[in-house]
Amino acid sequence: MKPIYLDNNATTRVDPAVLESMLPFFTEQFGNASSTHSFGESVAGAIKTARKQLQELLGAAHDHEIIYTSGGTESNTTAIMAALEAMPGRDEIITSAVEHPSVLQLCEHLEKTGRAKVHVIGVDSYGRLDLDGYRAALSDKVALVSIMWANNETGTIVPVDALADLAKAAGALFHTDAVQAIGKLPVALKDTAIDMLSLSGHKLHAPKGIGALYVKRGVRFKPLIRGGHQERGRRAGTENVPAIVGLGKAAELAIQNFADEQGRVRALRDRLEQAILASVANCAVNGDLHDRLPNTSNIAFDYIEGEAILLHLTRAGIAASTGSACTAGSTEPSHVLRAMNVPEAALHGAIRFSLSRDNNAADVDRVIEALPPIVDKLRALSPFWSDGKSPSGDATPLYA
Amino acid sequence: MKPIYLDNNATTRVDPAVLESMLPFFTEQFGNASSTHSFGESVAGAIKTARKQLQELLGAAHDHEIIYTSGGTESNTTAIMAALEAMPGRDEIITSAVEHPSVLQLCEHLEKTGRAKVHVIGVDSYGRLDLDGYRAALSDKVALVSIMWANNETGTIVPVDALADLAKAAGALFHTDAVQAIGKLPVALKDTAIDMLSLSGHKLHAPKGIGALYVKRGVRFKPLIRGGHQERGRRAGTENVPAIVGLGKAAELAIQNFADEQGRVRALRDRLEQAILASVANCAVNGDLHDRLPNTSNIAFDYIEGEAILLHLTRAGIAASTGSACTAGSTEPSHVLRAMNVPEAALHGAIRFSLSRDNNAADVDRVIEALPPIVDKLRALSPFWSDGKSPSGDATPLYA
Repeated sequence: MKPIYLDNNATTRVDPAVLESMLPFFTEQFGNASSTHSFGESVAGAIKTARKQLQELLGAAHDHEIIYTSGGTESNTTAIMAALEAMPGRDEIITSAVEHPSVLQLCEHLEKTGRAKVHVIGVDSYGRLDLDGYRAALSDKVALVSIMWANNETGTIVPVDALADLAKAAGALFHTDAVQAIGKLPVALKDTAIDMLSLSGHKLHAPKGIGALYVKRGVRFKPLIRGGHQERGRRAGTENVPAIVGLGKAAELAIQNFADEQGRVRALRDRLEQAILASVANCAVNGDLHDRLPNTSNIAFDYIEGEAILLHLTRAGIAASTGSACTAGSTEPSHVLRAMNVPEAALHGAIRFSLSRDNNAADVDRVIEALPPIVDKLRALSPFWSDGKSPSGDATPLYA
Repeated sequence: MKPIYLDNNATTRVDPAVLESMLPFFTEQFGNASSTHSFGESVAGAIKTARKQLQELLGAAHDHEIIYTSGGTESNTTAIMAALEAMPGRDEIITSAVEHPSVLQLCEHLEKTGRAKVHVIGVDSYGRLDLDGYRAALSDKVALVSIMWANNETGTIVPVDALADLAKAAGALFHTDAVQAIGKLPVALKDTAIDMLSLSGHKLHAPKGIGALYVKRGVRFKPLIRGGHQERGRRAGTENVPAIVGLGKAAELAIQNFADEQGRVRALRDRLEQAILASVANCAVNGDLHDRLPNTSNIAFDYIEGEAILLHLTRAGIAASTGSACTAGSTEPSHVLRAMNVPEAALHGAIRFSLSRDNNAADVDRVIEALPPIVDKLRALSPFWSDGKSPSGDATPLYA
């Protein structure tokens, strides 16, 4: 039986049309884009086309606002380091408690080494940012705000447009990690005050190893990686031509039938979620149900371990996750769910289902069939489970 | 007529066997290596195999001494920034005047922003490092020495083993940019005092967008890109699985028939070089003829412009370069040749021919036939050329 892949927030399958667009650039048009001979010139043109395709997906005003990087993590790192270097006299950063580790760990490191003061803004139980806390942290000391557009674990969407306006009023740069948003939400950067935006190819059916950092024209910028003149001196290193071409193609595919495809994915996700909620007791959806990515469902099953659920799902040919792949294997509960104050009984039992246009109704049906008996079996073995109640009452911390 | 590619120091064609090894990891085994389900586990195994293949090519003692990066420029940046951060109390860097821009420009930036004092060691007219200058610069203030193993423009090989021993005696870390050396020279890192080494996939028939930084076990290290736990916490970001697999395969291919292939390439290079020297007046080879990469020939043609030669070669279906692709398009003469004090009449007329195992005798024959009339034609148009002499005598600077 073909395995079912519902972990598209971790990574997506490269679209066959994307792979096809890349192939000539490995063994035929393999030149260095910086070379002035014919081998170089043909690939320089392909890079330009891809940049236009990505510009269109982002709704950016200029194609040169796009800097290719090796992925989302490099883009996030570049944005944060660039802002600190480009904004003398300002050494504070505002971020949120539910960011990706590439933002949180860098901020922690900068604070520990005395290079920045970091404000970590909390969220409510739906994962919504504490707006009062955000406003209070803004000042003329803030170099950069870095807040993600959509959360990778819960899919909660953040009103980054409004946050960027507030940052602009305080003279701070605004960066958003949009790795999960791009390709899933309509974006028109030219109409926003967002200064920098990170995206990752492999989250939207382009290959791994390619990403981009959008930097609005006029924004002060300092490169993380210096050397050659590539990317107008903003990111040195030989251009990753096949992957850049693939990212362009993936952008083109994401634009095509955007509304139809995202509507279809949303319907699949909703059916999966509603069927699980209807058939399994003591489970609940994490995140903001009113403002959420169309493909993501994070469901917490009380009194059991998410890792155990995953193991049984894997045996049933279903791939999902407990949260971010970048923290997979860790026995710690998700920092995102902790920040949301998810109750202790539910904190360890969260499963993230993340769909894509590669999924269909049969995939969802398989999960709807396979999951309830898995949960039942695990709960039967759980010392904490007794007909929907913790033996010692719901308020008792289970993993003190 | 099939174009001839003699710019392999800029980038190489991906070996068809390398591409084939990569293909399953785009659309089939496309999982995130960090994921615990079956999609993740199969790719984690492929990454481990590739790391072993690269370990063998490097002659490294342990496979976990290899950190995958996005390429040579990121590896160089990481090595330099890591050393400054990991060696408190030491803030000096020693490098050479003929390094790649990714080293020189970062060092210049660090000096300008007061984060490091940089010693730039010169070279002689053969491109050989000033050893007395090197010894004099070493002290207990030096955090890092960063000197390339083999020069990208001339192929001159640097005795990095001996330089590393001297650095070690001074308590400094030793890094080498070996982007041009790996795959062309035998390497056994476990027998050297080299602490860090950069390599780039696309210089050895693997794809662009992948490279590695070797960090010897026990060497103090700080990541440039933080976040996820990938690469044992030393380089965050989703692993570029297809490219990593391709780099492993390229390493395996480089090891196979290493001596035979490099011997064949050397013979082709020597035949090309000798034929040009025999048939064209007033030209000379730049670099250390006794200790040089087997594939590289940098020849300066007096009194004419390298860019003009390239243009005519391109029309004849031959791709070569004037120097580094990372500085292509610049009208400045090469910083490498300037550091070697190449005479003014020759400085602007240098052409780098760089071969690989993809080349054959017919390629070399085509160049031997095409080049002399091109040089003759350009010289006939040059105001500085008059039967092998500058009109105003050889000592006159031509481009004052």
